Amino acid sequence: MTQADPAAHCHPENKLCMPEDARRRAARRLSIARGHLDSIVRMLDEPDVYCVDVLRQIKAVQGALSGAGEVVLRGHLEAHVATAHERGDTLEMVEELMEALKYR
Amino acid sequence: MTQADPAAHCHPENKLCMPEDARRRAARRLSIARGHLDSIVRMLDEPDVYCVDVLRQIKAVQGALSGAGEVVLRGHLEAHVATAHERGDTLEMVEELMEALKYR
Amino acid sequence: MTQADPAAHCHPENKLCMPEDARRRAARRLSIARGHLDSIVRMLDEPDVYCVDVLRQIKAVQGALSGAGEVVLRGHLEAHVATAHERGDTLEMVEELMEALKYR
Amino acid sequence: MTQADPAAHCHPENKLCMPEDARRRAARRLSIARGHLDSIVRMLDEPDVYCVDVLRQIKAVQGALSGAGEVVLRGHLEAHVATAHERGDTLEMVEELMEALKYR
Repeated sequence: MTQADPAAHCHPENKLCMPEDARRRAARRLSIARGHLDSIVRMLDEPDVYCVDVLRQIKAVQGALSGAGEVVLRGHLEAHVATAHERGDTLEMVEELMEALKYR
Repeated sequence: MTQADPAAHCHPENKLCMPEDARRRAARRLSIARGHLDSIVRMLDEPDVYCVDVLRQIKAVQGALSGAGEVVLRGHLEAHVATAHERGDTLEMVEELMEALKYR
Repeated sequence: MTQADPAAHCHPENKLCMPEDARRRAARRLSIARGHLDSIVRMLDEPDVYCVDVLRQIKAVQGALSGAGEVVLRGHLEAHVATAHERGDTLEMVEELMEALKYR
Repeated sequence: MTQADPAAHCHPENKLCMPEDARRRAARRLSIARGHLDSIVRMLDEPDVYCVDVLRQIKAVQGALSGAGEVVLRGHLEAHVATAHERGDTLEMVEELMEALKYR
Protein backbone atom coordinates (compact mmCIF):
# COMPACT_ATOMS: atom_id res chain seq x y z
CA MET A 1 0.00 0.00 0.00
CA THR A 2 1.31 3.41 -0.90
CA GLN A 3 0.90 6.35 1.43
CA ALA A 4 -2.12 8.56 0.81
CA ASP A 5 -1.90 11.88 -0.93
CA PRO A 6 -2.87 14.34 1.84
CA ALA A 7 -4.66 16.53 -0.67
CA ALA A 8 -6.74 13.68 -2.12
CA HIS A 9 -10.46 14.33 -1.90
CA CYS A 10 -12.78 12.07 -3.76
CA HIS A 11 -15.31 14.65 -4.82
CA PRO A 12 -15.71 18.37 -5.33
CA GLU A 13 -17.15 19.27 -1.94
CA ASN A 14 -13.78 18.52 -0.46
CA LYS A 15 -15.07 15.66 1.65
CA LEU A 16 -12.66 12.88 2.55
CA CYS A 17 -13.67 9.45 1.28
CA MET A 18 -13.10 5.99 2.62
CA PRO A 19 -10.24 4.14 0.89
CA GLU A 20 -11.63 1.73 -1.72
CA ASP A 21 -9.90 -1.31 -0.24
CA ALA A 22 -11.18 -0.70 3.28
CA ARG A 23 -14.64 -0.07 1.90
CA ARG A 24 -14.79 -3.40 0.09
CA ARG A 25 -13.33 -5.35 3.00
CA ALA A 26 -15.65 -3.74 5.55
CA ALA A 27 -18.66 -4.43 3.30
CA ARG A 28 -17.70 -8.08 2.99
CA ARG A 29 -17.32 -8.50 6.75
CA LEU A 30 -20.55 -6.70 7.52
CA SER A 31 -22.43 -8.86 4.98
CA ILE A 32 -21.20 -11.96 6.78
CA ALA A 33 -22.24 -10.46 10.14
CA ARG A 34 -25.67 -9.74 8.69
CA GLY A 35 -26.07 -13.36 7.64
CA HIS A 36 -25.04 -14.47 11.10
CA LEU A 37 -27.51 -12.05 12.69
CA ASP A 38 -30.20 -13.45 10.38
CA SER A 39 -29.54 -16.92 11.71
CA ILE A 40 -29.87 -15.70 15.32
CA VAL A 41 -33.24 -14.15 14.54
CA ARG A 42 -34.35 -17.51 13.10
CA MET A 43 -32.95 -19.34 16.15
CA LEU A 44 -35.26 -17.23 18.28
CA ASP A 45 -38.29 -18.62 16.41
CA GLU A 46 -37.67 -21.94 18.13
CA PRO A 47 -39.46 -22.10 21.49
CA ASP A 48 -36.78 -24.34 22.97
CA VAL A 49 -33.76 -22.17 22.18
CA TYR A 50 -31.36 -21.89 25.11
CA CYS A 51 -30.36 -18.45 26.46
CA VAL A 52 -26.63 -19.10 26.63
CA ASP A 53 -26.55 -20.30 23.02
CA VAL A 54 -28.12 -16.99 21.99
CA LEU A 55 -25.67 -15.01 24.14
CA ARG A 56 -22.76 -16.81 22.47
CA GLN A 57 -24.08 -16.07 18.98
CA ILE A 58 -24.66 -12.40 19.81
CA LYS A 59 -21.10 -12.21 21.11
CA ALA A 60 -19.81 -13.72 17.87
CA VAL A 61 -21.64 -11.11 15.78
CA GLN A 62 -20.28 -8.36 18.02
CA GLY A 63 -16.79 -9.72 17.37
CA ALA A 64 -17.46 -9.59 13.62
CA LEU A 65 -18.67 -5.99 13.88
CA SER A 66 -15.55 -5.06 15.86
CA GLY A 67 -13.47 -6.64 13.12
CA ALA A 68 -15.26 -4.57 10.47
CA GLY A 69 -14.83 -1.47 12.63
CA GLU A 70 -11.09 -2.13 12.83
CA VAL A 71 -10.85 -2.29 9.04
CA VAL A 72 -12.62 1.07 8.77
CA LEU A 73 -10.58 2.63 11.57
CA ARG A 74 -7.28 1.50 10.09
CA GLY A 75 -8.21 2.94 6.68
CA HIS A 76 -9.27 6.19 8.30
CA LEU A 77 -6.05 6.53 10.31
CA GLU A 78 -3.89 5.81 7.26
CA ALA A 79 -5.76 7.90 4.72
CA HIS A 80 -7.12 10.79 6.77
CA VAL A 81 -5.65 11.09 10.25
CA ALA A 82 -2.00 10.58 9.26
CA THR A 83 -2.35 13.41 6.74
CA ALA A 84 -4.25 15.82 9.00
CA HIS A 85 -1.30 18.02 9.91
CA GLU A 86 -0.58 18.67 6.24
CA ARG A 87 -4.20 19.60 5.57
CA GLY A 88 -4.25 21.71 8.76
CA ASP A 89 -7.30 20.05 10.34
CA THR A 90 -5.63 17.98 13.07
CA LEU A 91 -7.78 19.15 15.96
CA GLU A 92 -11.10 18.64 14.12
CA MET A 93 -10.07 15.19 12.86
CA VAL A 94 -8.92 14.02 16.29
CA GLU A 95 -11.98 15.40 18.06
CA GLU A 96 -14.26 13.65 15.57
CA LEU A 97 -12.40 10.35 15.91
CA MET A 98 -12.30 10.44 19.73
CA GLU A 99 -16.06 10.96 19.72
CA ALA A 100 -16.59 8.00 17.36
CA LEU A 101 -14.32 5.70 19.43
CA LYS A 102 -16.05 6.39 22.74
CA TYR A 103 -17.47 3.30 24.43
CA ARG A 104 -16.01 1.10 21.78
CA MET B 1 -43.61 -11.11 36.40
CA THR B 2 -43.90 -14.20 38.52
CA GLN B 3 -40.85 -16.07 39.70
CA ALA B 4 -39.84 -19.09 37.64
CA ASP B 5 -40.55 -22.64 38.70
CA PRO B 6 -37.05 -24.08 39.28
CA ALA B 7 -38.14 -27.43 37.97
CA ALA B 8 -39.58 -26.06 34.72
CA HIS B 9 -38.03 -27.60 31.66
CA CYS B 10 -39.56 -26.98 28.30
CA HIS B 11 -38.92 -30.33 26.74
CA PRO B 12 -38.22 -33.93 27.58
CA GLU B 13 -34.42 -33.88 27.38
CA ASN B 14 -34.42 -31.72 30.46
CA LYS B 15 -32.93 -28.75 28.68
CA LEU B 16 -33.71 -25.28 30.03
CA CYS B 17 -35.53 -22.99 27.61
CA MET B 18 -35.46 -19.26 27.15
CA PRO B 19 -38.42 -17.46 28.71
CA GLU B 20 -41.04 -16.64 26.04
CA ASP B 21 -41.08 -12.93 26.81
CA ALA B 22 -37.29 -12.53 26.58
CA ARG B 23 -37.31 -14.56 23.38
CA ARG B 24 -39.81 -12.29 21.67
CA ARG B 25 -38.17 -9.09 22.87
CA ALA B 26 -34.68 -10.23 21.87
CA ALA B 27 -35.97 -11.28 18.42
CA ARG B 28 -37.55 -7.87 17.91
CA ARG B 29 -34.39 -6.02 18.87
CA LEU B 30 -32.18 -8.23 16.74
CA SER B 31 -34.48 -7.75 13.73
CA ILE B 32 -34.08 -4.00 14.08
CA ALA B 33 -30.30 -4.38 14.39
CA ARG B 34 -30.33 -6.51 11.24
CA GLY B 35 -32.16 -3.78 9.32
CA HIS B 36 -29.64 -1.25 10.57
CA LEU B 37 -26.75 -3.50 9.53
CA ASP B 38 -28.39 -3.85 6.11
CA SER B 39 -28.35 -0.10 5.71
CA ILE B 40 -24.63 0.07 6.59
CA VAL B 41 -23.84 -2.55 3.93
CA ARG B 42 -25.74 -0.39 1.41
CA MET B 43 -23.91 2.75 2.62
CA LEU B 44 -20.66 1.01 1.73
CA ASP B 45 -21.78 0.71 -1.91
CA GLU B 46 -21.33 4.46 -2.23
CA PRO B 47 -17.76 5.36 -3.21
CA ASP B 48 -17.87 8.61 -1.29
CA VAL B 49 -18.95 7.23 2.08
CA TYR B 50 -16.95 8.71 4.98
CA CYS B 51 -15.09 6.43 7.39
CA VAL B 52 -16.28 8.10 10.59
CA ASP B 53 -19.92 7.87 9.50
CA VAL B 54 -19.46 4.12 9.07
CA LEU B 55 -17.72 3.82 12.45
CA ARG B 56 -20.65 5.61 14.10
CA GLN B 57 -23.20 3.32 12.46
CA ILE B 58 -21.26 0.19 13.43
CA LYS B 59 -21.15 1.49 17.00
CA ALA B 60 -24.91 2.01 16.96
CA VAL B 61 -25.51 -1.59 15.83
CA GLN B 62 -23.15 -2.84 18.53
CA GLY B 63 -25.22 -0.91 21.05
CA ALA B 64 -28.38 -2.57 19.74
CA LEU B 65 -26.77 -6.02 20.00
CA SER B 66 -25.70 -5.26 23.57
CA GLY B 67 -29.28 -4.29 24.33
CA ALA B 68 -30.55 -7.59 22.92
CA GLY B 69 -27.86 -9.43 24.89
CA GLU B 70 -29.05 -7.74 28.07
CA VAL B 71 -32.61 -8.93 27.46
CA VAL B 72 -31.37 -12.50 27.02
CA LEU B 73 -29.03 -12.30 30.02
CA ARG B 74 -31.74 -10.91 32.30
CA GLY B 75 -34.13 -13.69 31.28
CA HIS B 76 -31.44 -16.29 31.85
CA LEU B 77 -30.53 -14.96 35.29
CA GLU B 78 -34.18 -14.83 36.38
CA ALA B 79 -35.33 -18.14 34.92
CA HIS B 80 -32.25 -20.34 35.16
CA VAL B 81 -29.47 -18.93 37.32
CA ALA B 82 -31.66 -17.82 40.23
CA THR B 83 -33.04 -21.36 40.44
CA ALA B 84 -29.73 -23.19 40.06
CA HIS B 85 -29.22 -23.99 43.73
CA GLU B 86 -32.61 -25.70 43.87
CA ARG B 87 -31.82 -27.79 40.80
CA GLY B 88 -28.34 -28.51 42.17
CA ASP B 89 -26.39 -27.32 39.12
CA THR B 90 -25.00 -24.01 40.42
CA LEU B 91 -21.37 -24.59 39.49
CA GLU B 92 -22.15 -25.73 35.94
CA MET B 93 -24.57 -22.86 35.35
CA VAL B 94 -22.14 -20.24 36.65
CA GLU B 95 -19.19 -21.67 34.74
CA GLU B 96 -21.22 -21.66 31.52
CA LEU B 97 -22.39 -18.08 32.07
CA MET B 98 -18.94 -16.74 32.96
CA GLU B 99 -17.62 -18.24 29.74
CA ALA B 100 -20.41 -16.62 27.70
CA LEU B 101 -19.87 -13.20 29.33
CA LYS B 102 -16.12 -13.07 28.68
CA TYR B 103 -14.96 -10.10 26.60
CA ARG B 104 -18.43 -8.65 26.65
CA MET C 1 -16.46 -26.08 46.58
CA THR C 2 -19.73 -26.83 48.32
CA GLN C 3 -22.92 -25.10 47.28
CA ALA C 4 -23.94 -22.08 49.32
CA ASP C 5 -26.59 -22.20 51.98
CA PRO C 6 -29.34 -19.96 50.56
CA ALA C 7 -30.20 -18.71 54.00
CA ALA C 8 -26.63 -17.78 54.90
CA HIS C 9 -26.25 -14.14 55.86
CA CYS C 10 -23.03 -13.00 57.40
CA HIS C 11 -24.44 -10.46 59.79
CA PRO C 12 -27.60 -9.55 61.63
CA GLU C 13 -28.96 -6.94 59.22
CA ASN C 14 -29.58 -9.76 56.79
CA LYS C 15 -27.12 -8.43 54.26
CA LEU C 16 -25.47 -10.92 51.93
CA CYS C 17 -21.68 -11.08 52.23
CA MET C 18 -19.00 -11.84 49.70
CA PRO C 19 -17.66 -15.41 49.90
CA GLU C 20 -14.36 -15.47 51.84
CA ASP C 21 -12.44 -17.16 49.04
CA ALA C 22 -13.56 -14.68 46.36
CA ARG C 23 -12.78 -11.83 48.74
CA ARG C 24 -9.19 -12.92 49.30
CA ARG C 25 -8.56 -13.67 45.63
CA ALA C 26 -10.05 -10.38 44.45
CA ALA C 27 -7.98 -8.48 47.05
CA ARG C 28 -4.80 -10.16 45.86
CA ARG C 29 -5.49 -9.34 42.22
CA LEU C 30 -6.43 -5.76 42.97
CA SER C 31 -3.26 -5.29 45.04
CA ILE C 32 -1.20 -6.40 42.05
CA ALA C 33 -3.16 -4.04 39.77
CA ARG C 34 -2.49 -1.21 42.22
CA GLY C 35 1.26 -1.89 42.08
CA HIS C 36 1.06 -1.87 38.29
CA LEU C 37 -0.87 1.40 38.31
CA ASP C 38 1.77 2.84 40.65
CA SER C 39 4.43 2.03 38.11
CA ILE C 40 2.49 3.77 35.32
CA VAL C 41 2.20 6.93 37.43
CA ARG C 42 6.00 6.82 37.91
CA MET C 43 6.50 6.21 34.16
CA LEU C 44 4.65 9.46 33.54
CA ASP C 45 7.28 11.38 35.56
CA GLU C 46 9.73 10.75 32.73
CA PRO C 47 9.51 13.50 30.09
CA ASP C 48 10.43 11.11 27.31
CA VAL C 49 7.78 8.46 27.95
CA TYR C 50 6.06 7.28 24.76
CA CYS C 51 2.26 7.46 24.43
CA VAL C 52 1.76 3.95 23.09
CA ASP C 53 3.78 2.43 25.94
CA VAL C 54 1.45 4.17 28.39
CA LEU C 55 -1.65 2.99 26.47
CA ARG C 56 -0.37 -0.60 26.62
CA GLN C 57 0.24 -0.39 30.37
CA ILE C 58 -3.20 1.10 31.00
CA LYS C 59 -4.73 -1.72 28.95
CA ALA C 60 -2.85 -4.28 31.05
CA VAL C 61 -4.21 -2.80 34.29
CA GLN C 62 -7.72 -2.79 32.82
CA GLY C 63 -7.28 -6.47 32.05
CA ALA C 64 -6.23 -7.10 35.66
CA LEU C 65 -9.28 -5.21 36.95
CA SER C 66 -11.53 -7.25 34.65
CA GLY C 67 -9.96 -10.40 36.06
CA ALA C 68 -10.68 -9.23 39.63
CA GLY C 69 -14.22 -8.32 38.59
CA GLU C 70 -14.71 -11.83 37.22
CA VAL C 71 -13.67 -13.35 40.53
CA VAL C 72 -16.19 -11.16 42.37
CA LEU C 73 -18.94 -11.82 39.82
CA ARG C 74 -18.44 -15.57 39.93
CA GLY C 75 -18.61 -15.58 43.72
CA HIS C 76 -21.75 -13.45 43.62
CA LEU C 77 -23.48 -15.68 41.08
CA GLU C 78 -22.65 -18.83 43.03
CA ALA C 79 -23.39 -17.55 46.52
CA HIS C 80 -26.19 -15.08 46.00
CA VAL C 81 -27.80 -15.20 42.56
CA ALA C 82 -28.09 -19.00 42.33
CA THR C 83 -29.97 -18.97 45.65
CA ALA C 84 -32.22 -16.00 44.90
CA HIS C 85 -35.33 -18.02 44.05
CA GLU C 86 -35.17 -19.78 47.41
CA ARG C 87 -34.84 -16.48 49.26
CA GLY C 88 -37.60 -14.98 47.11
CA ASP C 89 -35.63 -11.95 45.90
CA THR C 90 -34.89 -12.96 42.29
CA LEU C 91 -36.12 -9.80 40.64
CA GLU C 92 -34.23 -7.46 42.97
CA MET C 93 -31.03 -9.49 42.71
CA VAL C 94 -31.15 -9.62 38.92
CA GLU C 95 -32.00 -5.93 38.58
CA GLU C 96 -29.10 -5.00 40.84
CA LEU C 97 -26.68 -7.22 38.94
CA MET C 98 -27.77 -6.02 35.50
CA GLU C 99 -27.18 -2.46 36.65
CA ALA C 100 -23.69 -3.31 37.94
CA LEU C 101 -22.74 -5.14 34.72
CA LYS C 102 -23.75 -2.31 32.39
CA TYR C 103 -20.95 -0.95 30.25
CA ARG C 104 -18.59 -3.57 31.57
CA MET D 1 -3.40 24.42 21.20
CA THR D 2 -1.01 24.82 18.30
CA GLN D 3 -0.44 22.00 15.87
CA ALA D 4 2.62 19.83 16.50
CA ASP D 5 5.82 20.21 14.56
CA PRO D 6 6.01 16.91 12.63
CA ALA D 7 9.77 16.85 13.02
CA ALA D 8 9.73 17.38 16.78
CA HIS D 9 11.49 14.63 18.68
CA CYS D 10 12.18 15.12 22.33
CA HIS D 11 15.53 13.42 22.47
CA PRO D 12 18.46 12.42 20.32
CA GLU D 13 17.44 8.84 19.55
CA ASN D 14 14.62 10.20 17.47
CA LYS D 15 11.94 8.74 19.67
CA LEU D 16 8.59 10.50 19.78
CA CYS D 17 7.62 11.77 23.23
CA MET D 18 4.27 12.24 24.88
CA PRO D 19 3.05 15.85 24.85
CA GLU D 20 3.74 17.50 28.22
CA ASP D 21 0.13 18.51 28.78
CA ALA D 22 -1.26 15.01 28.13
CA ARG D 23 1.44 13.56 30.35
CA ARG D 24 0.51 15.72 33.33
CA ARG D 25 -3.22 15.21 32.88
CA ALA D 26 -2.91 11.45 32.48
CA ALA D 27 -0.68 11.28 35.58
CA ARG D 28 -3.23 13.21 37.62
CA ARG D 29 -6.10 10.96 36.54
CA LEU D 30 -4.13 7.78 37.14
CA SER D 31 -3.14 8.99 40.63
CA ILE D 32 -6.79 9.45 41.47
CA ALA D 33 -7.59 5.99 40.07
CA ARG D 34 -4.80 4.54 42.24
CA GLY D 35 -6.31 6.12 45.34
CA HIS D 36 -9.68 4.68 44.40
CA LEU D 37 -8.15 1.25 43.85
CA ASP D 38 -6.49 1.55 47.26
CA SER D 39 -9.86 2.08 48.85
CA ILE D 40 -11.28 -1.03 47.13
CA VAL D 41 -8.41 -3.14 48.46
CA ARG D 42 -9.21 -1.82 51.96
CA MET D 43 -12.95 -2.50 51.42
CA LEU D 44 -12.02 -6.13 50.81
CA ASP D 45 -10.48 -6.39 54.30
CA GLU D 46 -14.00 -6.18 55.71
CA PRO D 47 -15.58 -9.64 55.98
CA ASP D 48 -19.06 -8.25 55.37
CA VAL D 49 -18.36 -6.40 52.13
CA TYR D 50 -21.04 -6.99 49.49
CA CYS D 51 -20.09 -8.33 46.04
CA VAL D 52 -22.11 -5.85 44.03
CA ASP D 53 -20.58 -2.89 45.88
CA VAL D 54 -17.15 -4.19 44.90
CA LEU D 55 -18.23 -4.70 41.28
CA ARG D 56 -19.48 -1.12 41.15
CA GLN D 57 -16.22 0.25 42.55
CA ILE D 58 -14.14 -1.80 40.10
CA LYS D 59 -16.30 -0.47 37.27
CA ALA D 60 -15.69 3.11 38.47
CA VAL D 61 -11.91 2.60 38.45
CA GLN D 62 -12.12 1.09 34.96
CA GLY D 63 -13.97 4.20 33.86
CA ALA D 64 -11.20 6.37 35.33
CA LEU D 65 -8.55 4.32 33.52
CA SER D 66 -10.48 4.67 30.26
CA GLY D 67 -10.56 8.42 30.83
CA ALA D 68 -6.78 8.49 31.33
CA GLY D 69 -6.36 6.32 28.24
CA GLU D 70 -8.41 8.81 26.23
CA VAL D 71 -6.15 11.67 27.31
CA VAL D 72 -3.09 9.70 26.18
CA LEU D 73 -4.72 8.59 22.92
CA ARG D 74 -5.82 12.11 22.03
CA GLY D 75 -2.32 13.48 22.64
CA HIS D 76 -0.83 10.67 20.56
CA LEU D 77 -3.22 11.24 17.64
CA GLU D 78 -2.57 15.00 17.65
CA ALA D 79 1.18 14.94 18.15
CA HIS D 80 2.27 11.76 16.41
CA VAL D 81 -0.38 10.18 14.20
CA ALA D 82 -1.53 13.39 12.48
CA THR D 83 2.06 14.06 11.48
CA ALA D 84 2.92 10.54 10.36
CA HIS D 85 2.57 11.15 6.63
CA GLU D 86 5.09 13.99 6.81
CA ARG D 87 7.57 11.85 8.69
CA GLY D 88 6.89 8.96 6.31
CA ASP D 89 6.04 6.36 8.96
CA THR D 90 2.25 6.14 8.52
CA LEU D 91 2.00 2.37 8.22
CA GLU D 92 4.19 1.68 11.26
CA MET D 93 2.35 4.27 13.39
CA VAL D 94 -1.08 2.95 12.45
CA GLU D 95 -0.10 -0.68 12.95
CA GLU D 96 1.30 0.11 16.40
CA LEU D 97 -1.80 2.06 17.40
CA MET D 98 -4.26 -0.59 16.14
CA GLU D 99 -2.40 -3.16 18.21
CA ALA D 100 -2.58 -0.96 21.33
CA LEU D 101 -6.31 -0.26 20.87
CA LYS D 102 -7.32 -3.91 20.52
CA TYR D 103 -9.82 -5.11 23.11
CA ARG D 104 -10.21 -1.60 24.45
